[in-house]
Amino acid sequence: MDIYEKALKLHEEKKGKLEIVSKVEIKDKNDLSLAYSPGVAAVSKLIANDKKSAYTHTNKGNTIAVISDGSAILGLGNLGALAAIPVMEGKCVLFKEFANVDAIPICLDTQDSEEIIKTIQNLAPNYGGINLEDISAPRCFEIEARVRESLDIPVLHDDQHGTATVVLAGLINALKIKNTSQDKVKIIINGAGAAGLAITNLLIKYGFSQIIVLDSKGAIYEGRGDLNSAKESVAKYTNKEKKAGDLADVIKDVDVFIGVSQGNILKPEMVKSMNKQAIIFALANPTPEIMPEEALTAGALLVATGRSDYPNQINNVLAFPGIFRGALDNKVKQITDKMLIKAAENLAALVALPVPYEILPNVFDKRVALVVADAIRD
Amino acid sequence: MDIYEKALKLHEEKKGKLEIVSKVEIKDKNDLSLAYSPGVAAVSKLIANDKKSAYTHTNKGNTIAVISDGSAILGLGNLGALAAIPVMEGKCVLFKEFANVDAIPICLDTQDSEEIIKTIQNLAPNYGGINLEDISAPRCFEIEARVRESLDIPVLHDDQHGTATVVLAGLINALKIKNTSQDKVKIIINGAGAAGLAITNLLIKYGFSQIIVLDSKGAIYEGRGDLNSAKESVAKYTNKEKKAGDLADVIKDVDVFIGVSQGNILKPEMVKSMNKQAIIFALANPTPEIMPEEALTAGALLVATGRSDYPNQINNVLAFPGIFRGALDNKVKQITDKMLIKAAENLAALVALPVPYEILPNVFDKRVALVVADAIRD
Repeated sequence: MDIYEKALKLHEEKKGKLEIVSKVEIKDKNDLSLAYSPGVAAVSKLIANDKKSAYTHTNKGNTIAVISDGSAILGLGNLGALAAIPVMEGKCVLFKEFANVDAIPICLDTQDSEEIIKTIQNLAPNYGGINLEDISAPRCFEIEARVRESLDIPVLHDDQHGTATVVLAGLINALKIKNTSQDKVKIIINGAGAAGLAITNLLIKYGFSQIIVLDSKGAIYEGRGDLNSAKESVAKYTNKEKKAGDLADVIKDVDVFIGVSQGNILKPEMVKSMNKQAIIFALANPTPEIMPEEALTAGALLVATGRSDYPNQINNVLAFPGIFRGALDNKVKQITDKMLIKAAENLAALVALPVPYEILPNVFDKRVALVVADAIRD
Repeated sequence: MDIYEKALKLHEEKKGKLEIVSKVEIKDKNDLSLAYSPGVAAVSKLIANDKKSAYTHTNKGNTIAVISDGSAILGLGNLGALAAIPVMEGKCVLFKEFANVDAIPICLDTQDSEEIIKTIQNLAPNYGGINLEDISAPRCFEIEARVRESLDIPVLHDDQHGTATVVLAGLINALKIKNTSQDKVKIIINGAGAAGLAITNLLIKYGFSQIIVLDSKGAIYEGRGDLNSAKESVAKYTNKEKKAGDLADVIKDVDVFIGVSQGNILKPEMVKSMNKQAIIFALANPTPEIMPEEALTAGALLVATGRSDYPNQINNVLAFPGIFRGALDNKVKQITDKMLIKAAENLAALVALPVPYEILPNVFDKRVALVVADAIRD
């Protein structure tokens, strides 16, 4: 059996991956009267008078929702709400296993942004945080922004910010190996979807100043004319020389390639045209922009991918469990770029001596969620 | 410590009553690749091509949502979404403990019926059924009806139908003790909210023909002029003689009083005015329409209440766990009155020899959920 057959078998045997269990015993009438009526009335009254006690007397304080509309499931595209369920269940499993966060999947039967926003607002009382997931760009930007500003709980679109955090962590260590100073580094970000734009934004906030972002039509520069508002915003802070052209044109003499685009579009000759000791993050899934062997043969210093069967996997599980663990524990109302940068630095610091085949900690390293959580505080 | 102090302590110690746990182990990269990316993609594809497999390969098949808008919490009234959480968590605990149904609380931050309906529709893909809870009348009638007709999963407002089922079960056994034939029985239902109207409806469907329903303004009859549509509908099938008047007027010479109204409104002299061997269901919480001692002293044959400290507790937990267990197991798309009547008959039949202080099975009787579940099938 291959991995897909095994996964199907596992899911059918388990009939889903989550279980909702009781933390209280119900053995007799006394138990019933405390967990439910009439005793529970005292808890309702307490919360009605003091909303904060929902955090201390209900599951709200340790529960987040993992919400998707199924519009951009993994690399599979728009398969809708039902098909998103196993992915969101998987994510919830990881929240629990890696950071003891109770997480519940919510796959929405609508792809209308206004309805999604309204629905999330209506659900918010139950949760201590909201992880948005697999919502297509550019809709995801507005949805996240609007939900964020209207709620008093942290909201994070993981495809954007979880990915950006792990990429930054990997890049910090990759640059230690290359031994370059940050202000000299030239970076190409190929892909201007949710992940690409969030990576760009976080790298700018971290201090990188020489970045060119490309979408499917080539390099993005201010005034290109066909940009959506998210790309326009990024154009203001990138590609100051307003270079035009495709990937082969703009990749010459840069140090870092970060691909969140599609398989096999980075050619060996392009890697050869980069500065020496090129750093390649080829994150398209399941087929990277270039296979690691090819990139290394073409002279790359190191390669990171989204795959678990190669070294240097850029895996969001390094970030999201700890991010929400920290947000809940530290009662954070909003997860800021500053916190994510600190999380990336903490993650990077877990690798005592970064080498080309190990720029990130192992996802099963128990310290990972702890150091990330520690960064998520006001 | 009284029961309320104990309940507060329990809720604070446990920080909520539910936990969302993983059914799969995540010990290494192989586990990760099956429960999450990339293996899970096969499950998403399967579901995209065959929606039914969401029932077999995700939690949908054993998970229901317990949804409230916090507008009618227990006997406390409209306390809003946050204050509803401990009650809904309690309900979810009972679903799990009594029938192994995974249930998740959803307390909505809106009391606009259209928004509630739309939100529930958007959430539906995740669940195999929806238990509506503590939504005020008459809004609850339209919300339930509209959600029911738009979804392909069973939807049940428990305050209506769970209560009605247990009342019918109790009444079946009470009448065995009284040894009267059904067509002779005269019934007063005092209270025309969610529970009162649902009880009325189910008793009519069961075959009782002499029923008078009262709201706070007195007996309901066709053409009374100030009736909402739910009461108008019930007026068509009740009070055929169009009796007007208050409770004291219309209770004379009836056999059964069912109160879902307010404490202490049934006076001993009213009980004395009823037919001999009166059956009293005084279900107002926490103070019944009449205290059992008083009613018995006034000549009642038996008394049922909503309280656990008296015999004959009309407790919804006798019904709702089994109803949804059956709906899920038997793949029922809609829970009909016929199924609920069968459930009530099965519940009643569990009491081998009904006596005045035992007309219903014990809620901890393991057979309860089984026989109720068995009734919920097409």
